[in-house]
Amino acid sequence: MKFSAYLDAIPASVYSKLGAIASRAPKVYPLHVGDTYRQPPQGCHLKDLNEEALPGLHRYGPVEGIPALRQIIEETRQGQLGAFGPEHLLITGGATPGLSAAVAALVNPGDEVLLSSPHWPLIAGAVRVVGGRVIEVPLYGVAHSAAEAVAAFEAARGPRAVAIYLNTPSNPTGRLAPRAWLEAIVAFARQHDLWILSDEVYEDYAWGGEHVYTRPLAPERTISAHSFSKAYGMAGNRCGYLVGPAEAIAQIRKVTIHSLYDAPTGGQWAAARALAGPGPAWAAEARTRYAQIGARAAARLGVEAPQGGTFLFFDVAEALDARGLDGLLEDLAHQGVLVAPGASFGPWPTHIRLCFTAIPPAEVMEGVEILARRLGR
Amino acid sequence: MKFSAYLDAIPASVYSKLGAIASRAPKVYPLHVGDTYRQPPQGCHLKDLNEEALPGLHRYGPVEGIPALRQIIEETRQGQLGAFGPEHLLITGGATPGLSAAVAALVNPGDEVLLSSPHWPLIAGAVRVVGGRVIEVPLYGVAHSAAEAVAAFEAARGPRAVAIYLNTPSNPTGRLAPRAWLEAIVAFARQHDLWILSDEVYEDYAWGGEHVYTRPLAPERTISAHSFSKAYGMAGNRCGYLVGPAEAIAQIRKVTIHSLYDAPTGGQWAAARALAGPGPAWAAEARTRYAQIGARAAARLGVEAPQGGTFLFFDVAEALDARGLDGLLEDLAHQGVLVAPGASFGPWPTHIRLCFTAIPPAEVMEGVEILARRLGR
Repeated sequence: MKFSAYLDAIPASVYSKLGAIASRAPKVYPLHVGDTYRQPPQGCHLKDLNEEALPGLHRYGPVEGIPALRQIIEETRQGQLGAFGPEHLLITGGATPGLSAAVAALVNPGDEVLLSSPHWPLIAGAVRVVGGRVIEVPLYGVAHSAAEAVAAFEAARGPRAVAIYLNTPSNPTGRLAPRAWLEAIVAFARQHDLWILSDEVYEDYAWGGEHVYTRPLAPERTISAHSFSKAYGMAGNRCGYLVGPAEAIAQIRKVTIHSLYDAPTGGQWAAARALAGPGPAWAAEARTRYAQIGARAAARLGVEAPQGGTFLFFDVAEALDARGLDGLLEDLAHQGVLVAPGASFGPWPTHIRLCFTAIPPAEVMEGVEILARRLGR
Repeated sequence: MKFSAYLDAIPASVYSKLGAIASRAPKVYPLHVGDTYRQPPQGCHLKDLNEEALPGLHRYGPVEGIPALRQIIEETRQGQLGAFGPEHLLITGGATPGLSAAVAALVNPGDEVLLSSPHWPLIAGAVRVVGGRVIEVPLYGVAHSAAEAVAAFEAARGPRAVAIYLNTPSNPTGRLAPRAWLEAIVAFARQHDLWILSDEVYEDYAWGGEHVYTRPLAPERTISAHSFSKAYGMAGNRCGYLVGPAEAIAQIRKVTIHSLYDAPTGGQWAAARALAGPGPAWAAEARTRYAQIGARAAARLGVEAPQGGTFLFFDVAEALDARGLDGLLEDLAHQGVLVAPGASFGPWPTHIRLCFTAIPPAEVMEGVEILARRLGR
């Protein structure tokens, strides 16, 4: 008996080993996971949901999402994302299942997806699991203008390229893609008839400049992915959504009916309540706090302050011994500090990523202090 | 721009059209969906979950599932499923994502999966979406002994066969697979080194005979899929689990980390509470009620009473006019009654399936009455 050959290209998680080491430390600082220490907005917790007020709360909903959530998304999001109708919207069980289903719908085995790099780790596996080829397009610290960014995409593009993956604010770098870059990349995509996967999960967490949405620049080819996990501290609820061309959404729906069936009904109700009520104010306050702790952590580590998102990403080559990055990660785990290795994000073997929102700010700074000392900073 | 060619083999849903027709009827009887009218067990509703008692309730959990749920499954399920350890267990976002991820992990493009037929509709799409080939093995009303069942599998088996899909009690037929049949099919799978996907989502709903678990017969090749949706009326929570060989679970985990990331944290807590407390008693009561309404509906329609599950599946050829089954479904929709077409379950073009637990028993019987009169029964 055998397995899908596509899985050979996907590594197993490294965290079980490091997690076991860290669990023996006096205190654990899980800075490797992208999450938030904040509870969801008031009135939008699971305990606030009951079936008397919300019939069908514990039952299946429609595959495309419950009407209440679909309606509030249609009402509130067209200003930023451009006009869209019901046929352009699909509720998903978080942005991860949404982006994975989009990849499965667009990519045939052997097709290439160009990833602006460094990139969210799971997009690479989502491409590989359907037999697609991951093409890394290193931009961070490499391209210094829109023209150089497009040149990097052009150099990487093979005849089987079908899609580009973009993410701003970036996980892991915390940088914002400038409007001129996005416009130039969109023109490149249009020239070569490529889909654009626009990962907008940190859309609410930009503070160091303008956050530019890709969909309005190219609605005919952009599939925009959104997350209530990141927006409103509801990662455990597994709810997000996609906005894209009608024919793409119809195909992605075919994938999700099997990979997911539907998004959790309760999570959809919690998201609908947040979006219609306290969500935006909650996100505004979170944005202020995230910007503060992000800047403090960056300052202590001597790296550039993030423009958005929830991560710092930086080179630690100077602190590595013969054991390489694995050795550093193990040393840190012994002190309870977990960070993510750069290789998860593309060809960045001596970088690390840390999440500065996974635990409360004071605890983040304790973990950062341990890290900074180990790095000699 | 194009899409995955594998999606061409997957039809879009027919329900939007029929649902729109039914919505104009005085009352709608949604007997096409597999769900329950019952609320989850007491203390296991979403409103009963709060983060003071359950830290991390709204956050990501481990990809493999939260420890509390994993532990109670390990404690309570080994008697029926055979011995298993942590490495044999994966929590999934319902049985649908679990079975789909299992298929993705086991099937290479062009590989064949043998489906005992009629079958749960989504398993066919799960195979096609990864480029696998669906091989229908009609058994219901066709094979009359274990030897004939194995002969049907043997006749259908091609050189690329990699797995068998079994489901007892059956969706859609409501029949139980006899022990002798399962033993013979397992021997056939062992002889040809095939995986077995054992869909156990109706395991709690067998009353017309012995429910036989497949995993104890062949733990080395069986991936057993389980659902809290069906067990405890929690379909909206999206939580289930797989038990299988360690190397298969490790590969399936690689798939789910992309297709799902993790199962909803709240849904996992609700499931853990049910399994550890009121769940089994709730299921026992539901079983009695389901058996009663299933028998009543079957009697009115003049078909065999179900042995388990939540469905009736029967031939309506005698009631079809030149418009075929589509015409009947449309007529029924005009009267508010929605049932599922036989073609969704395999080569059964003149059968229909109805769910006798989707709405309260009195309403089921109203819908059944409309259906019976239309069928001239």
